[in-house]
Amino acid sequence: MNLNLNLNLNLKTQQLIAQIRKKKSFLCIGLDTDLEKIPPHLLEVEDPIFSFNKAIIDATHHLCVAYKPNIAFYEAYGISGWKSLEKTITYLNKNFPEIFTIADAKRGDIGNTSTRYAKAFFEDLNFDSITIAPYMGKDSVEPFLAFPDKHTILLALTSNAGAFDFQTQLVNGKELYKQVLETSKTYENAENLMYVVGATKAEYLGEIRKIVPDSFLLVPGVGAQGGNLEEVCNYGMNENVGLLINSSRGIIYASKEKDFAEAAAEAAVILQNQMALELKKMK
Amino acid sequence: MNLNLNLNLNLKTQQLIAQIRKKKSFLCIGLDTDLEKIPPHLLEVEDPIFSFNKAIIDATHHLCVAYKPNIAFYEAYGISGWKSLEKTITYLNKNFPEIFTIADAKRGDIGNTSTRYAKAFFEDLNFDSITIAPYMGKDSVEPFLAFPDKHTILLALTSNAGAFDFQTQLVNGKELYKQVLETSKTYENAENLMYVVGATKAEYLGEIRKIVPDSFLLVPGVGAQGGNLEEVCNYGMNENVGLLINSSRGIIYASKEKDFAEAAAEAAVILQNQMALELKKMK
Repeated sequence: MNLNLNLNLNLKTQQLIAQIRKKKSFLCIGLDTDLEKIPPHLLEVEDPIFSFNKAIIDATHHLCVAYKPNIAFYEAYGISGWKSLEKTITYLNKNFPEIFTIADAKRGDIGNTSTRYAKAFFEDLNFDSITIAPYMGKDSVEPFLAFPDKHTILLALTSNAGAFDFQTQLVNGKELYKQVLETSKTYENAENLMYVVGATKAEYLGEIRKIVPDSFLLVPGVGAQGGNLEEVCNYGMNENVGLLINSSRGIIYASKEKDFAEAAAEAAVILQNQMALELKKMK
Repeated sequence: MNLNLNLNLNLKTQQLIAQIRKKKSFLCIGLDTDLEKIPPHLLEVEDPIFSFNKAIIDATHHLCVAYKPNIAFYEAYGISGWKSLEKTITYLNKNFPEIFTIADAKRGDIGNTSTRYAKAFFEDLNFDSITIAPYMGKDSVEPFLAFPDKHTILLALTSNAGAFDFQTQLVNGKELYKQVLETSKTYENAENLMYVVGATKAEYLGEIRKIVPDSFLLVPGVGAQGGNLEEVCNYGMNENVGLLINSSRGIIYASKEKDFAEAAAEAAVILQNQMALELKKMK
């Protein structure tokens, strides 16, 4: 494995690449924490969501390079959910500052409103990155890109069935998601962009790489079984790896018993081992 | 003015139409409440955001039919912002239950995650409606539509410059926003849909009405001066009015002094008077 450190990359990207090299992993663990799915014994503690997250983080932080709390799961619990989210990101930043953090929020609004969201997630909560929907275009995305050493992860091709409603429709003869990739490259501070690309369409990754050869891609939809991990790597890896593979439920809900954190680590290590193999194949 | 009550409309829509008839207004007031813009004397009270909102609501509720808190402005203040939002929606629901409430959140995610957002805004906070970005398609929108007597307000054509990046691009020979309108009509419970259509493009409203003749349109971008209100009405009104015209900063920041609520009412009444005139023109 030979990873090039490109000094044109923002500081956080360089840290991410260094972490991938050290841990032999490009795994992102999704913290979609749901009171109905966590082990019942945790419901008796003061903050079940944070307690669950902390246990998962403590058991898996050496196997992954990123955590991605899905903000909807916290917002669903109102103020207590926001407290759990704050405690989780604070715990991560204090104890594992090298780990890349992703607020999976899928926000996007007109300029002054996007700036509000950016401050909330980048400054107050101090996430390294946030996912953003591209529908409202340039002035809805650039307020996020303006934050140095933060990343904006733009939805390009998502892994759900609804992706075929608009994302794969032809815009001026080219699929909309490709138009999103190309147009976004012209945005100010485009070097702070990453993209969400669903793993259910691994064959599209080759074409995506032609448009954004250097960007990191956040790839959801790879199960704990790692079904198409090799295929995703074949099509999607670049010289800096350039991939963050996310797994949420397959890892965090591997067991509903008291051994849940241990079981999560066991599920994570399976993916991490496969990733180490893929990294070994790199020149 | 002769408004037809169509019993196929959901209950909340019927209430909205009755309110428009009673108040001779289809004004929505945007509560984009910003600590840097509210009168400085309010910063000394315990919850400046809620105090500001309450004063604005008390002074304007007879002039408008809807309030639209922009969620980013609350999220930017973390837990204290969520508390202010909760207090605002609770105050509205308790004291003015007939008023239509819009969570301007622009959410949208895969199915189980969209359900989380829907529960947060429709059940816990008890908003009547929420704004949603269409990029992820059918299974990201339908979880919101599944809630009876709630509305999902889909972004179609927004009023910002970035709207031209993707929304007006041709998809299979037709602008993307028109494709969004047409495709969304096939979604389950599509009768619960409304659409965001920017007022800066009043001439597009005629074409939009051909695709969605019966739906309510939420129209941002009409200033306190009501510049193009008449034009928007000419192109966009249907037999049930079918328009909610939003004004935010032009009303709520009409004055930064102690008379701010009174000044807001004065700005609102200008728009309401113009709306009464437009309603009078209806057959």
